[in-house]
Parts: sequence; C-alpha cells; structure tokens
Amino acid sequence: MTVSDTPPWLQTVTKKRQIRDDAIQAFIEMHKAPSESESLHLDEPGTTRNTLKDALAIDNIEEISQAIRSGVVTASQLLEAYIYRLTEVLFNDAIKQANELDDYFKKTGNLVGPLHGVPMTLKDQFDVQGYDSTLGYVGRAFKPATRDCALVSMLKQNGAIIVAKSNLPQSIMWCETDNPLWGLTTHPRNPAFTPGGSTGGEGTLLSLRGTVIGWGTDIGGSVRIPSHMNGLYGLKPSSTRLPYRGVSVSTEGQEHVPSVIGPMSRNIDSLVAVTKAVIDQNPWDRDPKCCPVPWHSDLFQQARSKPLVIAVMRDDGVVRPHPPITRVLDEVAAKLEEAGHEIVTWTPGNLHQECIDIMDQYYTADGGEDIRRDIQVGGEPFIPHVEALVNKGKPISVYNYWQLNKQKLAAQERYLDLWNSTKSPGTGKNIDILLTPVMPHSAVPHRKCRWVGYTKIFNFVDYPAVILPAGHVSKELDRDAAQSMGEYKPRNALDEWNWNVFDLDSMDGMPIGVQVVARRLQEEKALGAAKAVDEILKDMTKVEK
Amino acid sequence: MTVSDTPPWLQTVTKKRQIRDDAIQAFIEMHKAPSESESLHLDEPGTTRNTLKDALAIDNIEEISQAIRSGVVTASQLLEAYIYRLTEVLFNDAIKQANELDDYFKKTGNLVGPLHGVPMTLKDQFDVQGYDSTLGYVGRAFKPATRDCALVSMLKQNGAIIVAKSNLPQSIMWCETDNPLWGLTTHPRNPAFTPGGSTGGEGTLLSLRGTVIGWGTDIGGSVRIPSHMNGLYGLKPSSTRLPYRGVSVSTEGQEHVPSVIGPMSRNIDSLVAVTKAVIDQNPWDRDPKCCPVPWHSDLFQQARSKPLVIAVMRDDGVVRPHPPITRVLDEVAAKLEEAGHEIVTWTPGNLHQECIDIMDQYYTADGGEDIRRDIQVGGEPFIPHVEALVNKGKPISVYNYWQLNKQKLAAQERYLDLWNSTKSPGTGKNIDILLTPVMPHSAVPHRKCRWVGYTKIFNFVDYPAVILPAGHVSKELDRDAAQSMGEYKPRNALDEWNWNVFDLDSMDGMPIGVQVVARRLQEEKALGAAKAVDEILKDMTKVEK
Repeated sequence: MTVSDTPPWLQTVTKKRQIRDDAIQAFIEMHKAPSESESLHLDEPGTTRNTLKDALAIDNIEEISQAIRSGVVTASQLLEAYIYRLTEVLFNDAIKQANELDDYFKKTGNLVGPLHGVPMTLKDQFDVQGYDSTLGYVGRAFKPATRDCALVSMLKQNGAIIVAKSNLPQSIMWCETDNPLWGLTTHPRNPAFTPGGSTGGEGTLLSLRGTVIGWGTDIGGSVRIPSHMNGLYGLKPSSTRLPYRGVSVSTEGQEHVPSVIGPMSRNIDSLVAVTKAVIDQNPWDRDPKCCPVPWHSDLFQQARSKPLVIAVMRDDGVVRPHPPITRVLDEVAAKLEEAGHEIVTWTPGNLHQECIDIMDQYYTADGGEDIRRDIQVGGEPFIPHVEALVNKGKPISVYNYWQLNKQKLAAQERYLDLWNSTKSPGTGKNIDILLTPVMPHSAVPHRKCRWVGYTKIFNFVDYPAVILPAGHVSKELDRDAAQSMGEYKPRNALDEWNWNVFDLDSMDGMPIGVQVVARRLQEEKALGAAKAVDEILKDMTKVEK
Repeated sequence: MTVSDTPPWLQTVTKKRQIRDDAIQAFIEMHKAPSESESLHLDEPGTTRNTLKDALAIDNIEEISQAIRSGVVTASQLLEAYIYRLTEVLFNDAIKQANELDDYFKKTGNLVGPLHGVPMTLKDQFDVQGYDSTLGYVGRAFKPATRDCALVSMLKQNGAIIVAKSNLPQSIMWCETDNPLWGLTTHPRNPAFTPGGSTGGEGTLLSLRGTVIGWGTDIGGSVRIPSHMNGLYGLKPSSTRLPYRGVSVSTEGQEHVPSVIGPMSRNIDSLVAVTKAVIDQNPWDRDPKCCPVPWHSDLFQQARSKPLVIAVMRDDGVVRPHPPITRVLDEVAAKLEEAGHEIVTWTPGNLHQECIDIMDQYYTADGGEDIRRDIQVGGEPFIPHVEALVNKGKPISVYNYWQLNKQKLAAQERYLDLWNSTKSPGTGKNIDILLTPVMPHSAVPHRKCRWVGYTKIFNFVDYPAVILPAGHVSKELDRDAAQSMGEYKPRNALDEWNWNVFDLDSMDGMPIGVQVVARRLQEEKALGAAKAVDEILKDMTKVEK
C-alpha cells in the first residue's frame, strides 16, 4: 500500500504513533549522552543508579515524600526512573515540572503538597493542556486540550507529576483495551490475555511498575476490572465525590449511569493518600457537580479498626464465578470471621438483574448515535464489541427516557431499602460493607470478557467500591473444584459462555481481587474496610474486640 | 346541565370537593356540640379559648415546644385552633396524632422530637398514606398514596402534625395557582390578584395564619414566589439536601433542572428549625438521591454573625424590576452596608439569559407528552398557561437531550467560575452570598405572571436561596420613581409586558421580599445570612467587627 492508497484515518494513526515513538527516542538519546552527569542506565553500577532502583521500589506516597524530604532522591531523579518504564509523550513538561519541584524544595526545604514528586499517569480521557484526549478515537487526534481538567490542576498543585497518558478501548465502552488508533494492550503475564479495561493501559503500567498512581474512569467497572486482573488496588468512588470536570467521555450528557474518575495503585495506603489529598483540596469549589463532603478521617479509622458486619455476595444469580474466584472469596470471608468480623449473607433476590436490565437501556438510548458520530469523524473501523453496541438498540424518545429515569430511581430506592434491612441476625446491627467478587473470572483471553454485572451494579446504585488483590488462580488449590464443575448446567447463555472460558492451565497464577462496597458517598468507609481486609490478608493485625 | 350531561371529569371534581366540604362540616359540627368540653369557638370568651388565640399567635417552632412543655397548650388544642383556619381533609388522622402526642407527653414528660405538636401543611404533591396527590390533575383524584413520602414520615417521627394539603396549578408548572379540580387560589389582600405559585395554597394558608410550616416544591421559583408575594419566609434548598422520595411531580424523570422540596413560614427561626430538624434525621439513609451532608451549625453561626461580602444583582438584564422592588433592594443593601457588611456588584453579563435559554428547553423536551397524558386521563380542559407550554416545542431526540445536558453543565461551570471570580475589590475576599430581587414585581392580577428569571436561575445552577420579607409597595415612597419611569423604553416583549403590569394604586401595600443565595449545598450559609439580614431589617443587631 502506497501513502496515497492509505486511508486518511490510518495516516493519522501513523503520525500519532510516530510522535510518541520520537518522544521516547529523544528522551533515551538525551539521557544516553556522555555529557549527561546523571545518566540513568539502571543496570549499571553507581550510587545514583542504585538509589533510583531503590526509589522505583517505593510504591507508597508517604514513603516517596520521606525519600524526597530526606534527600535520598529528587523529584527529577524519580521521574526519570519512571520514564524508563513508559510509552507516552508528556516527558518534557514532566521533566520541567520535576525540576521546578526540586528547586522549590532546595530553596524552602518544604514539599509543595502531599503528592510532591509522585509520578502519575492518566487514562487518555483526562484533559491535559496541549495534549489530546482521544478516547481511542482517530477523529480526536491532533485536537489538544486548551486547559488542564480539574483533577490534573489539583494534582499538580499538590506536587504530583503527570508523566503520560495510557491506552483504552475505542469509545471506552468495553472491559478490554483495544482501538485502531493505539492498538491492543495485552496482559503483562500473558500477551494472549487482556489486562481488562477500559482503564487497561493503567492496569498494565502499574503492573509493570511504570507509574505510582494510575487514574482511570469507571462507568461499569473500568477502574475495577483492570485492578482485579492485574493484582492492583483501585477505587471507584460515588459520583460527585471526585471532580469529573474536564474529562471527556463518550455518550457524554448521559448522566443517570454516571461515569466517575478513580485512582489505581500497588498498595492500599497510596490509594487512600491520593483520594484524601484530592478531597482535601475541596473539589466542589472547582466542579459544580461535586458535593461538599470533606474527608472524614473518623469514618476511615473506625472502618479500619472496629469489628464490622460484612454482607457477602458469592453469586449474583446470573453468572456463576469460576471456582478460583469462589475459593478466594470464601478464604477472605473465613479470615475476616476469624479476625472478629461478622459475616452475613447478601440476598438480593432478582434485584441485581433488574437493575442491570434498566441500566443497559441507557448505554444505547441514543441508538448509538454518539459513538457512531465520533467514529465517522475519523473514519476508522469499529472494533467488534463497539459495533455490536451501537447496533444494539433503536433510539428511544425523551418521554420514554424520563420513564427510564423513574424506573432507575425506584430500583435505587429498593436497593437502599435492601441495604437498610440486611442486618446482623444476632445484634440487629446494620451491615457496614458488602464483599463481592469483582468478575466471575480472572484475566481471560482477548475478546472473551462479557459479564460485568458484579461491578456495574455499583455504578447504577452509585456506591463506592474498592478492589484489593486477594489471591491467585492456582492449579493445585482449584483442581478439585474445577473437576467437580464438570457437570455444571449453565443457567443461561452468559453463564455458559463464562463456563466455557474457564481454563485452569492457562489461567494459573492470574491475580484475583475482591470488591469492598460501602453506602453512597462513604468512600472513607470503603477504603478503611479495604485497609482492614488487606491487613488481615497480610496477617498484619487483628481488629479491636 | 343534568348529571348525565356532566362530563366525567366534572363529576370527579364535584365528588372531590364534596368530600372536602363534608370533612370540614363534620369537624365544625363535632366541635359545636355542647357535650364537647373544650369547645373552640375562638370568638367566645373563656380561658381555653383565649389560650388558643394566644397559641395561634405563636409562629416560632421553639416557642411552640416551650408552650407545650410548660402546659400552656396541648398538641390537640393547638391543632384544633389551626383546623379552624383550614380548607382540607386530613383532620381525623391529625387529631388522632395530636392525641397520641399529648398522651406521650403526659406519660413521659418529654416531647417526641423538635417538631412535637407543630401543625404543618403540604402542597398537594407530597404522598400521605391514604390521601391523593393530585398535582391539580383530575385523573389523579381517588388514587390514594400507599405510603407516606420520606419527608412526611420524618416530620411525623419528629412530632409534627400534618393537617392538610393545599392547592397548586394544574401540572405545577406555573407561578400562579389555578386548576380545574380545585379552582383558583386568590391573594389574601386582594382576590383579583394571584398569591403566586406553584405553592400558592401554602402561601395563602400561611398568610392567613392557617398553618405554622407550609411545605412546597420549587423547580423555577414555586416556593419563593408565593413567599415573596405574601410576605413570608421560604427556603429553596439545593437538590439532594432534603428528601424528595415519594413526592410526585410532572415531567418526572426530567432531573437536570431538579425540582426540590422546601419549607415556608412566618419567621426565619422556624424556617431554620424545621430545615435543621429534617437534616438532623439523616435523609440520605432513606432517599438514595440525598447527599450525606449533615447540618453545619458553624456555617450558620458564622454567616449570621460575621461581616459578609455580599454581591447585589439589581437587574438581570432581561426584565427590569418595578420601582418598588428596586427601592426595597436598595434600602436593604444600604442597611447592610451601614451594619458593616461589604456590598459588591454582581456582573453576570449575558450569563443569566444564556442559562435560562438552555433551561427552557428541558421543560418541553418531551414535546409536552408527560403533561398531555396526565390531562388525558381526567379529560379536564387545559388552563391557558399549561396549554401554551405543552404546545411550545416538538420533542427532541435523546442524543440532542444529551447535548443539552452538556451545554447545561458547561453553563453551570461558567456560573461557578463567575462566583469564584467575584471578590471584594478591597480585600480580595470571595463573596459570601448573592442578594437579588425575587421577581420583577410584587403580587399581580391573575394571569399576569410571566418572568421568573430571578428565581429559576438558581434551580438551574442548583444553589440554595432564602426569601425574606423586606418591605411593601408604597404609594408615598414609590410615586416619584414610578413617574420618572414614564418614558422607559422596554428592552424586549417581556420587559414591556412587565412594565405594563405596573399599577401603583392597586399594588399599594403588597409585600416585597428579597432573595439570599449561597453556594451549592450551603443551606446553612443562606439561612444564616438571611437571619442576619432579617435582624438588620428589624434593627435588632449589628454584626461583630
């Protein structure tokens, strides 16, 4: 194919990827030059280099602050170490910012904020001045944002360094990560497997230690699914808690199933620290959608230290989890009980399915027009999942859309009533949190993800949910249960699909997370309880009795 | 017209009104009976009767609690005194409830809650178990609610007594009060004038001392307009602060210009007390839409006692207020400045008009289908305003509805930016509140209300707004300004309409309110500042320096 035969969308793709590759190459060249005093070939011996290798091992925001404060590492050195792990193009701005932070610290002896020098990356939806927010659409390439989104400007004020933006599926409306512009993102453990999505780029980056905090968005599980599949921590907050202003999304204006932004990390403390740092900056002063709910330390501390009443949902009644998922959840529940928490059963009846049936009507209420228009601008092909989505339903009328909103609110009310009526049989205490699987499976081969009912329900009711790693698929531990599933009669086509995807040999070793859910806008409680669970899983502590 | 000629909708109207009249008659007969020991003919002499006349003079919730606690009056006696002022049909349940409250107090010596024995009434939208919520539609008559709405159950738990429901316009979508089911509600000072709407029934009831707290709803000014026209206090909170669950509304499911519930009263302290009492009951535990924002006493106290930076908007640039409105606002601003507050000017440019242009598209996005369906059920005629509304626009597509939502959010963001950038020129401090007219006119003759831009803008941006009475139209004080307006060239058709409505002679003595606006979900600040303004207008106090 000659250049003139190349369709325009493919020319855009080539140009866009070339710019990224050039930026990486330029960075490598610059730091290879012998004149560069602090060359960063991490494999060579030398004090600075070893320090940087050490610095890369620090996942915890508080420890990064300590390291910078004590002079062990500078923001610039840490950033350069991280850039060596990356594949994107904000390096020059990031280096400039890191130098400014170092100058400030040298002059004043103070850090500019709780995130001073912490390298962060963003899913390619967050506006950063001068850079594109593509959503995986060719037509959005070469249309740089004119200002930083609210989150980015808050992070920068707190000292965080935005290093790169990462991959996501075309339109973001899928739980895997593939698009014609940037291509396919694969699982770090096995290239035939998906890292999940839609925040798959951040999942892979974090897993490969290419960043400290990865910011994603979640409208059905997009922060939580890659967290689960890559052994990471992730928070999907309630909408209106963290600022969405200046973040592009497809089907924008559809606000009844709200997309939210959320952080991902390699440990629970960083997840808490970055969430608290943003909330402590009063996002409601910048984003009219944010609620003035300050960070409640007491709620966090209570949840992490007191005995909790924990409802456990083992199966949503639609798609039964694979044996390793069930085993890990049962192990977690047993350890929690042993540590002094009370386990009760979550019995939603048919409510989860009813909520999801209402929910699915929102994604296609416009008959796919929003996504179709975006793809028409670039002219690239649809990925199969998105093509199926836009052709799924006819547009509905605004009157029927309002009826859908009424159904949605009524279902949310029933869910709240169910939460309020689920209590400890012994003490009558209300439940504190709900513990569930994240998906009915661990990471799966590309294009095998189908059922996100375990995550999307909490977008629908708008409750905060934290993912934490809780185990792995294990040939040894799961063999018997897998064999006894041999005669399992699936309940429906989705359940059958999920069962057919199960393959213990290829999945062996894949991470498995659990999901900790709290009431709406109680992010502190979800995070505090997740911290408690994490400590128990690591056998670090017991709760007060 | 014989019965068989009577159209079915009119038969429903007759039956519904007859039931109301019978209930009132039954109450009167019962209390006329000589066997009744505590007969309540208020005009006759006697200790109890005088006590009740005194009790009716108490507007303040805290004073009612005191009177009941000290045995001056019982909940039953107070209720009966109020029933004599009323025109609706919840009397038997209310009397039963009052007796229960009295028994409880007799047995325990305690009040059940901060609203013990306080008579309240509700616009005919709030579900009360066993009673209709008509919204002024014939087709909703004889369809009693199966349970109390969240607000009513919370009020009852706090000891309030629900005495009656009151009138509203057909569909609620108008700033006057008229419908074929219940008829026209008139202004207490002049039957040719409207008391405003859509919460006009509560405006009239409060003005005639027929209730202590009147609950309304507000999607464009419906709590604030009757408060202004009847010399009352009213709060339109931000959405998600007070529980809407179980309140019916037309165009339900349209949630981007949110309808809210709000209280009305004859003094600021009762408005504060009832708002606090509801928020202190954690409405977010019952209504999934409510935000967990507790009552912040510090915010209230600071706003009522510290010097404030107050932006004043004298004219929205669309419809210029009548001379008495401008005079009263200027007087208030002058007194505030004299008392030590700082006055700055609010300069929205064209932003108010832009917001309203976006907003108006929501009301008819369904092409009027929602209202048309409701009226078809009963078959009654449209009132002219509603007929014009449903025929105003064609339905739009869901895709275009989403674009409208995006425009709306962008305008809200600009409004927040404007608020953030409006500061004291001297100190650079941010403004605390915004002070504006409520309407461009005082009460007007029936069917003359047209421009609600001064109130509806705060539904659009979703900021809390408190109305307080600030003066009256005055032939003496307004004569000169009115005459100098003789040569005024109206800016547009609405402005011309408003100017033609002005008639100093017939409006003489009509109340005029002002509107105190705070940032979103800072109800405490709006109420605290309104309390400060109220005290200054009553010359009761100066602020701390």
